[in-house]
Amino acid sequence: MPPAPCSQLDSSGRLRHLISLDGLPRERILALLDHAQALRAASRNGTRAADVLAGRTVINLFFEPSTRTRTSFDLAAQRLGAHVINFDIASSSTTKGESLLDTVHTLEAMHCDAFVVRHKESGTPQYIARHLRSGAAVLNAGDGNHAHPTQGLLDALTLRLHRPNPAALRIVICGDIRHSRVARSDVHALHALGVRDLRLCAPPQLLPDPAEFPGCGIFHNFDEAIDGADAVIMLRLQKERMEAAAIPSEAEYFVRYGLSSDRLRGAHRDCLVMHPGPINRGVEIASEVADGPQSLILEQVANGVFLRMAVLVELLAAGDSAKIRA
Amino acid sequence: MPPAPCSQLDSSGRLRHLISLDGLPRERILALLDHAQALRAASRNGTRAADVLAGRTVINLFFEPSTRTRTSFDLAAQRLGAHVINFDIASSSTTKGESLLDTVHTLEAMHCDAFVVRHKESGTPQYIARHLRSGAAVLNAGDGNHAHPTQGLLDALTLRLHRPNPAALRIVICGDIRHSRVARSDVHALHALGVRDLRLCAPPQLLPDPAEFPGCGIFHNFDEAIDGADAVIMLRLQKERMEAAAIPSEAEYFVRYGLSSDRLRGAHRDCLVMHPGPINRGVEIASEVADGPQSLILEQVANGVFLRMAVLVELLAAGDSAKIRA
Amino acid sequence: MPPAPCSQLDSSGRLRHLISLDGLPRERILALLDHAQALRAASRNGTRAADVLAGRTVINLFFEPSTRTRTSFDLAAQRLGAHVINFDIASSSTTKGESLLDTVHTLEAMHCDAFVVRHKESGTPQYIARHLRSGAAVLNAGDGNHAHPTQGLLDALTLRLHRPNPAALRIVICGDIRHSRVARSDVHALHALGVRDLRLCAPPQLLPDPAEFPGCGIFHNFDEAIDGADAVIMLRLQKERMEAAAIPSEAEYFVRYGLSSDRLRGAHRDCLVMHPGPINRGVEIASEVADGPQSLILEQVANGVFLRMAVLVELLAAGDSAKIRA
Repeated sequence: MPPAPCSQLDSSGRLRHLISLDGLPRERILALLDHAQALRAASRNGTRAADVLAGRTVINLFFEPSTRTRTSFDLAAQRLGAHVINFDIASSSTTKGESLLDTVHTLEAMHCDAFVVRHKESGTPQYIARHLRSGAAVLNAGDGNHAHPTQGLLDALTLRLHRPNPAALRIVICGDIRHSRVARSDVHALHALGVRDLRLCAPPQLLPDPAEFPGCGIFHNFDEAIDGADAVIMLRLQKERMEAAAIPSEAEYFVRYGLSSDRLRGAHRDCLVMHPGPINRGVEIASEVADGPQSLILEQVANGVFLRMAVLVELLAAGDSAKIRA
Repeated sequence: MPPAPCSQLDSSGRLRHLISLDGLPRERILALLDHAQALRAASRNGTRAADVLAGRTVINLFFEPSTRTRTSFDLAAQRLGAHVINFDIASSSTTKGESLLDTVHTLEAMHCDAFVVRHKESGTPQYIARHLRSGAAVLNAGDGNHAHPTQGLLDALTLRLHRPNPAALRIVICGDIRHSRVARSDVHALHALGVRDLRLCAPPQLLPDPAEFPGCGIFHNFDEAIDGADAVIMLRLQKERMEAAAIPSEAEYFVRYGLSSDRLRGAHRDCLVMHPGPINRGVEIASEVADGPQSLILEQVANGVFLRMAVLVELLAAGDSAKIRA
Repeated sequence: MPPAPCSQLDSSGRLRHLISLDGLPRERILALLDHAQALRAASRNGTRAADVLAGRTVINLFFEPSTRTRTSFDLAAQRLGAHVINFDIASSSTTKGESLLDTVHTLEAMHCDAFVVRHKESGTPQYIARHLRSGAAVLNAGDGNHAHPTQGLLDALTLRLHRPNPAALRIVICGDIRHSRVARSDVHALHALGVRDLRLCAPPQLLPDPAEFPGCGIFHNFDEAIDGADAVIMLRLQKERMEAAAIPSEAEYFVRYGLSSDRLRGAHRDCLVMHPGPINRGVEIASEVADGPQSLILEQVANGVFLRMAVLVELLAAGDSAKIRA
């Protein structure tokens, strides 16, 4: 069951938290993409980002191990001039409800402006957001199966940079859809771009409840799903899910749900290939495809920093925040 | 036995290290509180702290795990513009006397200006201070049962902000007094504020040597101690101490030494409630009291950052430091 | 077998990576020493380093535990205004060839300007440098038995500061030469200074292939080697090597290959004593020598920061780097 909704917008429509793309107005999503795209363009022109978050504090509160997402947020915050504190508490005892809030309130009392939260339980970022007492913002960096909104946004940004009119595209997301927070956030972001032909492909045991994905086609044959596709987003296979899917080996998974060069030929000729990383080479994607000319995997990583900068600015750079926390 | 004293002041009366409040002149303590209070006021007016420690290096050398104290020092240093290096070496092999000094001298040789030291053995910060060869300062962030001077100062600051004339107050510190570095530093700080009616309450087995706490009342009945109190400082119960106190369970401890709403009614009507954190809810303090209107627990955390900024500025911002280290 | 060479210089002779001193033109080595010496002089005059790396990102990628080298690079980068990300992945699973490159490419895609790499396998920094796709630089912070170029440079710098004409000196390096990356880089750096009488001393089982050290004298009797020496560089003894050297105990090692006061009297009267650290007191060096007036051990540490600043500036501060990475 998805967590109860939490208002991410204040009464004037300004973004207060980024917990999920679900329920975010389309224009807010597009504005974030535009902002990230402008930051990217400035960087490519050799312009350093201004220290618009100078004096602000961003806390990375990671209850699950992560290298790339934490580093991406860390760099995004540093490049805007913020102070950053990193907590990697994957193995700590601070995960129980009660002491989680005490930890958060303690850090909040030290005047932090944003909590970037990753947690294995769906709903934790929202739970934290509901219990904050200051004007601090919560950024969901991935919670359980629920949402990974910055990944959804950076995927949409990457796609839009290559296909300026994404509405008419056929896009396939393939892998363990049922347990994927990336798939959920991608669907919301792509719908905001106007994508209509969105296909979800998974082994039968890992297919999601179709009611959760209105407007998406559901497939369990990858060759059918990929037919004529303009972009394919592959999901990382968690080893423990393979067993749940009754698939006997990684090799077997690759045969049925891996993106090989052969299979990619069933897609549109210049079909784009995406993956949130880290990739399992030879499991859900062939090395030659991951490293091939159609792959946008490293562009996704690059765009992720700009996207997270845009979100941080949107959440923290408004003039009234200093007032709130004093 | 407390460690042999170490001069924290130089010949002109300037603070060189902050090892213990014991022996610090009252006016130095009050000056630090004034400085912290000014930084707090500036922050509440929306003024960012100046980068007065730009180019300086602060090393957090934590031989015991700590989240809140380390983060508080980290943010204090960052907000003053210093470079910060964090060492969490709770589980490392660098704790033996000889190699401890080699580690310190190596870091000192890299031109660091301050060592913030936490160690489970009393006297370690002082030992380091005595062996430094440069003008670097040592800040004790808690050593064994000996002292936690910034906690004592921030508690005094928090109390003074709410009770501008603390001298006439009745204040109770309750918990494992015998093993508490917080209690020791609180007593020194409160005496500097002129507090005369200071009561220490602990289970019989955890009472301290009265000779160590001259001028304090010693109680083992919490209801008697709290009678008419203007402020109560609760101490965190370490699980291993409960057994030493011959107390069979946390529930039993709470009945006899926990701060419940009922028990708090025995104090003055607007008695303040403090705790250095992290709290054990339902063990030494009831949740309704910790989260209630008389609780200053999160204000203590907030004031801790300003207090540590004040100490860092006092120790490092003097003009002659650069000369010394060159 | 040493790794295949990798071009550290671009077509215009500018330093692109610092992988090894082997093959670096003598004038490049001396220019780095001059640059470091100028930074050191400025610091001693109380001048803060300019933020010439503002907006740049340095990633410390340490696959082996290290306190001093990592901190030295961290401080060097911070003091030049760079953003720093620290990865201590000694115990992680990211060490296999394939996933190592995926990690590097991911971090590279986030626009980092330099990778400081330590790895237990010789050739890893070079492997990374060969596979980078951007203009990012690789700094070898120690790889297997191969090289530790910044250590070699800082040792040469420290020596030159005390002996302005090093060419005529007799210098001994003593310890496990065979497995020492420090010895290899020291020899290259000292040859660049023009040192002609360079002696390598090791237990017979730990002597290197003489062909690998042309122009060096090879000794296994330390008393013979040290006779009339102007400087001795002692190497840290790895416990596991002692067994390989068929030496029954640390005490026995000290008797034969340790630097005692007695043994030091066989050297030139004001022979300099160096050690890359961390030292094993009473194993390869007596405490009284390590802490004595001839010891430069802590000066080496201090010079290390300036040397690493010089290397970072040389690699990153050139105007064209921003172009390359956009």
